[in-house]
Amino acid sequence: MSGQRKLVFYGAVSADGYLARENHSLDWLIGTEGEEDTDYADFYESVDTIIMGRKTYEEILVLFPDEFPYKGKECYVFSRTLTGRTEDVRFIHEEPADFIQALKRQDGKRIWIVGGGDLLQPILKEELVDEFIIQVAPVLLGRGIPLFRPGETETALKLTDVRRYKQFAELRYEVR
Amino acid sequence: MSGQRKLVFYGAVSADGYLARENHSLDWLIGTEGEEDTDYADFYESVDTIIMGRKTYEEILVLFPDEFPYKGKECYVFSRTLTGRTEDVRFIHEEPADFIQALKRQDGKRIWIVGGGDLLQPILKEELVDEFIIQVAPVLLGRGIPLFRPGETETALKLTDVRRYKQFAELRYEVR
Repeated sequence: MSGQRKLVFYGAVSADGYLARENHSLDWLIGTEGEEDTDYADFYESVDTIIMGRKTYEEILVLFPDEFPYKGKECYVFSRTLTGRTEDVRFIHEEPADFIQALKRQDGKRIWIVGGGDLLQPILKEELVDEFIIQVAPVLLGRGIPLFRPGETETALKLTDVRRYKQFAELRYEVR
Repeated sequence: MSGQRKLVFYGAVSADGYLARENHSLDWLIGTEGEEDTDYADFYESVDTIIMGRKTYEEILVLFPDEFPYKGKECYVFSRTLTGRTEDVRFIHEEPADFIQALKRQDGKRIWIVGGGDLLQPILKEELVDEFIIQVAPVLLGRGIPLFRPGETETALKLTDVRRYKQFAELRYEVR
């Protein structure tokens, strides 16, 4: 994989592994001490391309109704139904694995995979994720949308860093 | 809860939150760099009483066929079927919550809850767990026995410490 662009998952989960409540709410995350101390700005600067699934995209539109938060980055949304493009994103109808493989061979900065679940699982299976940067928030939600869905794939990781931002624990892994 | 003995979960999980494979195997955990560097010895010394479910107990007997690993501690195993006691443990037929509430009012050191799932969920619901000390191992198993089962209970935590032992990230939480 050397020489290729890295595909990175970066995002927050509850201590029991949920990205969001079942209704997609992030109320448990907002206001947690330390969010402003993370190095999100540096991470965001290290990225020039963003990929996400259609459900995540629609959630982002609801969370940020006034302005798309990833303006200026190349944004691809995988969808079986939507095609074409908006001012901010391009809809991709291809198989995520094929598209991402091609994307990783292009020149550029890192690629950020936003969100989990539907999109993350097949990409993990195809061994396309290079790094995980996970902020763990101090709450057990009990239920919600999991970052990692149950599946047949086992993935060996290498812990590269552990950081603390007040109430967030951040775990950084490379995929082996 | 002040003045009462603390009930602590202490144990290792995969990065996707599993305590063990579905067949109870811990092969993914054994040999991970850093296990020998944790402060397990200090933790073990801080505990004089251990509680676990029957399934966890039977797994421990398989993992340690020669000698019960918690000899010398007061060990309680919750079971609907087993009664009486062995040389090493006493079987408890009562409701875990009632029994644990009484236990926490007794004098003594900390109480360790070994294992998760069947026993942990009702105890969490009754707000009996005071602390979580979780070592995260660098692997995504994809499936297995989860530490936290889906449930209706939401639990607010306070991150008290983040440590790194080579390939293990350790997160320490107090239950708020």
